[in-house]
Amino acid sequence: MNSDEQAIRDVVAKWMQATQATDGQTILSLMTDDAVFLRPGHPPMRKAEFAAGLRAQAHGSSPRFEGQSEIQEVQVTGEWAFMWSNLTVTAYPQGGAPSTRKGNTLTVFRKQDGKWLLARDANMLAPVQS
Amino acid sequence: MNSDEQAIRDVVAKWMQATQATDGQTILSLMTDDAVFLRPGHPPMRKAEFAAGLRAQAHGSSPRFEGQSEIQEVQVTGEWAFMWSNLTVTAYPQGGAPSTRKGNTLTVFRKQDGKWLLARDANMLAPVQS
Repeated sequence: MNSDEQAIRDVVAKWMQATQATDGQTILSLMTDDAVFLRPGHPPMRKAEFAAGLRAQAHGSSPRFEGQSEIQEVQVTGEWAFMWSNLTVTAYPQGGAPSTRKGNTLTVFRKQDGKWLLARDANMLAPVQS
Repeated sequence: MNSDEQAIRDVVAKWMQATQATDGQTILSLMTDDAVFLRPGHPPMRKAEFAAGLRAQAHGSSPRFEGQSEIQEVQVTGEWAFMWSNLTVTAYPQGGAPSTRKGNTLTVFRKQDGKWLLARDANMLAPVQS
């Protein structure tokens, strides 16, 4: 594994840890300013909207999240890279039953000032029947 | 627009025409041998499974498909590229009512022997309520 691929895997690990810790500041530092998040049934989400969601989560009654990313493939090409991963995210609502979503993600990373950042994310998670 | 970006847009246009014409041979010629198709709620689909689906469509009673791709972004980096698009696909089942799915796609292309081919595809289409 080359150092770029390792650096991208480190970004994913940090993102997962920050998600679990509800550490919005760290999550925002791991994406480009023009990051775009794509999901089924929703319009594209930009960084500002993502940040607003994190603030609501920190101050309100949003669920706590835990995730595991099983990376299937990383391809690095110059200042760009893409990653295919299998992601599982469990939401723990305050006073409610946990729910799990699982599925594939396809993510584009960009190297800016020597640092790999998430730039585009396709999220194909679907509810897991318990 | 550089010639690589134009070539990728041409692949998309050919794919759409071939889909409408149920021309499986052409569709298969536009993807790499290791192509992977990702969708919510389904395991990853490889080229062999995609080909089997096309054969079933040609010989059976599968619906006819029509699609429009509104390309939002193409980024080319060496022998790799990615594209974000907004895709609308309408299925016309034989003797049934048409149904439409719409949403974003994130697609990775690879240049092989000077030819751009679809390599990875994240499909986030969701049913449109009529």
